[in-house]
Amino acid sequence: MSKLLNEELKFEGPRFKVVRKEYERDDGLKYIRDCVEPGNAVVILPVNENNEVIFVKEEREVIGRISMGLPAGMIDENEDPKDAAKRELAEETGIEAKSLEFLISYFPSCGYTNERIFIYLARDFTYGQQHFDDTEEILSVEKIKLDDCLKMISENKFYHASVNIAILLYYYKYCNGGNNGSN
Amino acid sequence: MSKLLNEELKFEGPRFKVVRKEYERDDGLKYIRDCVEPGNAVVILPVNENNEVIFVKEEREVIGRISMGLPAGMIDENEDPKDAAKRELAEETGIEAKSLEFLISYFPSCGYTNERIFIYLARDFTYGQQHFDDTEEILSVEKIKLDDCLKMISENKFYHASVNIAILLYYYKYCNGGNNGSN
Repeated sequence: MSKLLNEELKFEGPRFKVVRKEYERDDGLKYIRDCVEPGNAVVILPVNENNEVIFVKEEREVIGRISMGLPAGMIDENEDPKDAAKRELAEETGIEAKSLEFLISYFPSCGYTNERIFIYLARDFTYGQQHFDDTEEILSVEKIKLDDCLKMISENKFYHASVNIAILLYYYKYCNGGNNGSN
Repeated sequence: MSKLLNEELKFEGPRFKVVRKEYERDDGLKYIRDCVEPGNAVVILPVNENNEVIFVKEEREVIGRISMGLPAGMIDENEDPKDAAKRELAEETGIEAKSLEFLISYFPSCGYTNERIFIYLARDFTYGQQHFDDTEEILSVEKIKLDDCLKMISENKFYHASVNIAILLYYYKYCNGGNNGSN
């Protein structure tokens, strides 16, 4: 591994900072990498008793689209990702899940950001009240049957990496008739 | 959709720029979003005649790890993503694929970056010479059997969003015995 020599803060905004890092390779070559540091986030895949997935419809300004995403939010400093998942799911959809299971964690774009995403599977719901604040961008909460979600993925209808990973992994682990030995 | 009022360049580096954008909602509320703009990229899932996936092992400084990724690279301005996929696959692995098929496109992290990824499936190979330049971080090219890749995904062994999406979608579309009607 290359050795980190220096760090310099290049930008700081409400959502992320940019840190320029200088590294040295084993052969002595020095080089920089600019790193976007937004913190880590949770994404929740809520699947109800009718095999429907619960989505939140949101305006996503930076990609210029209204998109169907999964409930999600930032992990507070020192917070357990599972606690963040529980909180964000309740805030955005009103769902209290009796079962919240870790599915996978991944880095969205390893070349320039250290953001890490933790996906949880939520099942066995009771419904409370949504309570997101004014800055939340959620337009509506919607249900889509899992089979339709899979068809939509194969037709490239979802924009988010997280939606594609969560649903395809759920399908692989829980829905293919035990071909993978997980059932 | 909110209306874009203003854009201001806040940071510019070799890999991406950060643009602060001011928006106005229909109800008059004004707010900002900082957007990381790295351009778009291609990722290639090469699957050989023995059902093995070809990976590139790379040091990824920003996440502090050596990781197994798929061949990938930036799309030049006005370039067809498929041409970029062909070029990057040849540069990083030496593979010339007779079949290069679009699989899916997605946004890695819709909240703060407009980066878009295009994934192609490469099959029917001939092998030429790798020809990456000095700045490439590739340590080795490695093969992993598709079945082992799926097991590794379910054990959360891959860090990249792109690896998880590409392999799980390939499994869904081509490997589950036609349960989804795609075969």
